[in-house]
Amino acid sequence: MTVTTVRAGMVAPFHVMRILADARRMEAQGIDIVHMEVGEPDFPTPAAIIRAGIEALEKGNTHYTPALGLPALREAIAAYYLQRFDVGISPGRIVITPGASGALQLVLALLAEQNSSVLMADPGYPCNRNLVRLSDAVPIQVPVSRDDNFQLTPAAIVSAWRDDTRLVIVTTPSNPTGSVLTLKALGALRQVVCDEGGMMVVDEIYQGLNYGEAPTTALKLGNDLFVINSFSKYFGMTGWRLGWLVAPEAMIPALDKLAQNLFLAASTPAQHAALAAFEPETEAELERRRCEFERRRDYLADALEGLGFRLGYRPAGAFYLYMDCSAFGMDSDTLARRLLDEAHVAVTPGRDFSEHAPDKYIRFAYTADIDRLKEGVRRIKGLLTA
Amino acid sequence: MTVTTVRAGMVAPFHVMRILADARRMEAQGIDIVHMEVGEPDFPTPAAIIRAGIEALEKGNTHYTPALGLPALREAIAAYYLQRFDVGISPGRIVITPGASGALQLVLALLAEQNSSVLMADPGYPCNRNLVRLSDAVPIQVPVSRDDNFQLTPAAIVSAWRDDTRLVIVTTPSNPTGSVLTLKALGALRQVVCDEGGMMVVDEIYQGLNYGEAPTTALKLGNDLFVINSFSKYFGMTGWRLGWLVAPEAMIPALDKLAQNLFLAASTPAQHAALAAFEPETEAELERRRCEFERRRDYLADALEGLGFRLGYRPAGAFYLYMDCSAFGMDSDTLARRLLDEAHVAVTPGRDFSEHAPDKYIRFAYTADIDRLKEGVRRIKGLLTA
Repeated sequence: MTVTTVRAGMVAPFHVMRILADARRMEAQGIDIVHMEVGEPDFPTPAAIIRAGIEALEKGNTHYTPALGLPALREAIAAYYLQRFDVGISPGRIVITPGASGALQLVLALLAEQNSSVLMADPGYPCNRNLVRLSDAVPIQVPVSRDDNFQLTPAAIVSAWRDDTRLVIVTTPSNPTGSVLTLKALGALRQVVCDEGGMMVVDEIYQGLNYGEAPTTALKLGNDLFVINSFSKYFGMTGWRLGWLVAPEAMIPALDKLAQNLFLAASTPAQHAALAAFEPETEAELERRRCEFERRRDYLADALEGLGFRLGYRPAGAFYLYMDCSAFGMDSDTLARRLLDEAHVAVTPGRDFSEHAPDKYIRFAYTADIDRLKEGVRRIKGLLTA
Repeated sequence: MTVTTVRAGMVAPFHVMRILADARRMEAQGIDIVHMEVGEPDFPTPAAIIRAGIEALEKGNTHYTPALGLPALREAIAAYYLQRFDVGISPGRIVITPGASGALQLVLALLAEQNSSVLMADPGYPCNRNLVRLSDAVPIQVPVSRDDNFQLTPAAIVSAWRDDTRLVIVTTPSNPTGSVLTLKALGALRQVVCDEGGMMVVDEIYQGLNYGEAPTTALKLGNDLFVINSFSKYFGMTGWRLGWLVAPEAMIPALDKLAQNLFLAASTPAQHAALAAFEPETEAELERRRCEFERRRDYLADALEGLGFRLGYRPAGAFYLYMDCSAFGMDSDTLARRLLDEAHVAVTPGRDFSEHAPDKYIRFAYTADIDRLKEGVRRIKGLLTA
């Protein structure tokens, strides 16, 4: 076996996977673990979506759809943009993909050419930089901090821009920080990316999980950007692997060709099921869940700040708190390790999200119900005040 | 919009997609089209698999599985290899993927590095060469002909090998020719690939659709090769998008990391449904379908040979006839066009599969029932004898 594997070496492992594996091992030994590491809502897929999925199977909707997706679903998403965000998007600009990963892969296959570079915020979702590397392009991670709401700024983009830069990836709401960009701030980023001659990819996969301000979409800014979205988080369809991409009209034929080759089409039963994602019954259920997430956020932020973790802002979206743990005199990896081993609480260390400040932060996901979060906080307190 | 799209330009369009689009347009005008272009069985997903899918949804099995796949499904596939092919494969070597496309993508992300080359037969499945190009590697298409059963030979591999060659992709049964390699012939290919210092990827996605000889698997040859398979064709689960990869043990940690980034995991409902693919009820149904495909093959091969298409062998697998149409005094693209426009029969021209001999062949799929095939033959005869 003499074959080298350079690409695999470029991709960092997810440290949370070791935490998760160790947590599962401990659970198998009968140890109770509080999970605050998982980026997946604890809620099941809404009932109407499940019913639509069952109906699709009963009707035998199991053949391939076109590579761009089921026309009815593309139309339903366009209608959703119009109704909820007051923005008119032609269904022809919408590509249904196997998860948001498939959507980002399409954009990168199209535009992140060999040895070009792609700007993104650090901290950020690790798959984004890894997918850029797997495209043989270079991710440029621009350090952002609480001072700039953990988001890219026009000045930061200008200063990080290189001759070979083609794309900027912006995530709002952000994973891991939950921070949200206003439409005005997004517009300023778009302007500077345009001026530099690149294109913007806006990752909106946590859209709808917004607290306070109503959610918006970068699509209101114009037709010259890419928006990635997903049925996973807000719509509660993680395991179905279904997302979408909105692209400039002129890019659709090329994306169609790439989709045919990269994945043929997204799952047919999932696409039929997702048609029920926009029904009033589902909408009401998702609003109940959103309120519950907000309640958890408020509880957990207060409780962890009370223990000495520093947040200093109230994240306006997603279901994460990215907390500064430098007050405890150990790096975040050591703390995460001890939280699991000694307090039986699983969390994600910051180095999964950040190459610039890997030791200072821990991500807490509030994807467990509030009683479990309380139990987690009780255990963390026990460890830190021991 | 000044961004260039070099990668999209490297990927050839599927000509059959234009045929298909035109056929749909004609159907919308009320014209009856006989479809012999579609690489998808006309049979629905077997009932037991549908039932298992519904049950999974009723139970709420909609959360992420591990990136390598549902442990029970990896074990079921290992048991299938043992029971049907008498080969012991550790479940730990099996990666569940979103379709065979996902499996090939994993292998290429791992091993088809920038500017390396990958050997494959021409004619062959166009996604294979396109995915190699999207990996920034170079597909080397080795011309094969009826004389070598439309498959690579050791001599052809040696003669095409370059210093930068890393991988050889072998497809058995083949798309578009339906030709099948014996285990002995596969062994000879493996030996020469080993001797040259590369690795072999065997695409077995039509495995089980074998006529005459019982199917085999390259996994019987040793542990140092990759095998790609799928629930799409033999198991009738096209739209579910589910496949698998068997890899050398030592590659699994790297593949796990790549899968986490490229697609997180395959569809959870599909994985649960696929557990029923190995049940006796499904097995019996699939055997009935296989016999029906064989009957169609025999009918269609005789009938088209009777019209002057040249085959000269009886393909031992898949559901395609790749027929030499040079007797008709026009290139295959013109003939395919006229078959659609004048005879209302949709077929796939050879240039989708071949860069070396794009004009000489047409692929007929026998994925329609025998009465429709008869109607298609009647129409083709009408055109050719007009």
